[in-house]
Amino acid sequence: MTQDQEPVRQRLLSEATRLFAERGFESTSVQEVVAAAGVTKGAMYHYFDSKDDLLHEIYGRVLRMQMERLTHFADSPGPVAERLYAAASDVVTTTVDNLDDSKIFFRSMHLLAPDTRKSVRAERRRYHERFRDLVTEGQREGTFRSDTPADIVVDFFFGSVHHLGTWYSTEGALSGAELGAHFADLLLTSLRPDRPAPPA
Amino acid sequence: MTQDQEPVRQRLLSEATRLFAERGFESTSVQEVVAAAGVTKGAMYHYFDSKDDLLHEIYGRVLRMQMERLTHFADSPGPVAERLYAAASDVVTTTVDNLDDSKIFFRSMHLLAPDTRKSVRAERRRYHERFRDLVTEGQREGTFRSDTPADIVVDFFFGSVHHLGTWYSTEGALSGAELGAHFADLLLTSLRPDRPAPPA
Repeated sequence: MTQDQEPVRQRLLSEATRLFAERGFESTSVQEVVAAAGVTKGAMYHYFDSKDDLLHEIYGRVLRMQMERLTHFADSPGPVAERLYAAASDVVTTTVDNLDDSKIFFRSMHLLAPDTRKSVRAERRRYHERFRDLVTEGQREGTFRSDTPADIVVDFFFGSVHHLGTWYSTEGALSGAELGAHFADLLLTSLRPDRPAPPA
Repeated sequence: MTQDQEPVRQRLLSEATRLFAERGFESTSVQEVVAAAGVTKGAMYHYFDSKDDLLHEIYGRVLRMQMERLTHFADSPGPVAERLYAAASDVVTTTVDNLDDSKIFFRSMHLLAPDTRKSVRAERRRYHERFRDLVTEGQREGTFRSDTPADIVVDFFFGSVHHLGTWYSTEGALSGAELGAHFADLLLTSLRPDRPAPPA
């Protein structure tokens, strides 16, 4: 991609994000997106196959960035608890930093064509599997409890992360980093081994 | 409400739930809902002011049921850890039992008129406050850690619960009750006091 092309693609993505957030994915037409970005429909179809493709890419670029960061933290040296803490707090911060993208995506995912939805699910699954591997590593070495399946731990934690778009306000008292520290701390504590028997 | 009236109202709600889940709230007309329920538009407007009102009530009836159950568990005798465990596992079970309602609601909440949205938010806030009171009670008596604000604990846990509609499949390996036991156990463990210092 040349430097000349990049701005058009970025402009299309940011105008689409803004319009989808304001009016909803379902109520925004391709015509409105190209008009807002000041380009022709032909120019848009050079970069994106469809409105679905725009939504896919809005979420996809956040997910790829989060995957890169997760890989960095997961592959760092140091104890697994530290690496999981860093990965967990970071994904809260980057989700808050890209809250519109996440909000639009989880509202509208069900409106995507089945093939696009399948492909997004596969990308997200790879992310979750990498995260789960950290939990499994800690379980194997006895740092984390093993009586809760690692998949359930991942679903539990990412439910909280993916739901941020529904309630988190950037005008609230806590920054993304502060919230990330609390969430990561709750996660790490929930994985501590040697818990007492659950209540009868 | 008389016995004769109840079936019409219930039929409207279940047909609306089915159609909203299949086609989306935004793509379903009032005409389609009344046709599916086999009643006139006039009959529908006897019970519901608008399509918004139908969506509000689909979520509202689940929320009221969950509020009753939460109140029951919260007001029961016994240690606060047991009461919180019972309330937390139960809300996962009832959410899974009413998964379509929850799924439709979180997908479409942003399409509700501002007043309706405000009223739903207020109802849900009352639920979350009652739940938070249990966390605060345990923090005050030293059963739960106090270094994480109770509000954050509630947002963390209910993110996981509200996000179930996005990934949980009734064809999966775990029942709602089994998943509820895991989630409640993670929550209770995350609240254990006397944790070691977080990783540097």
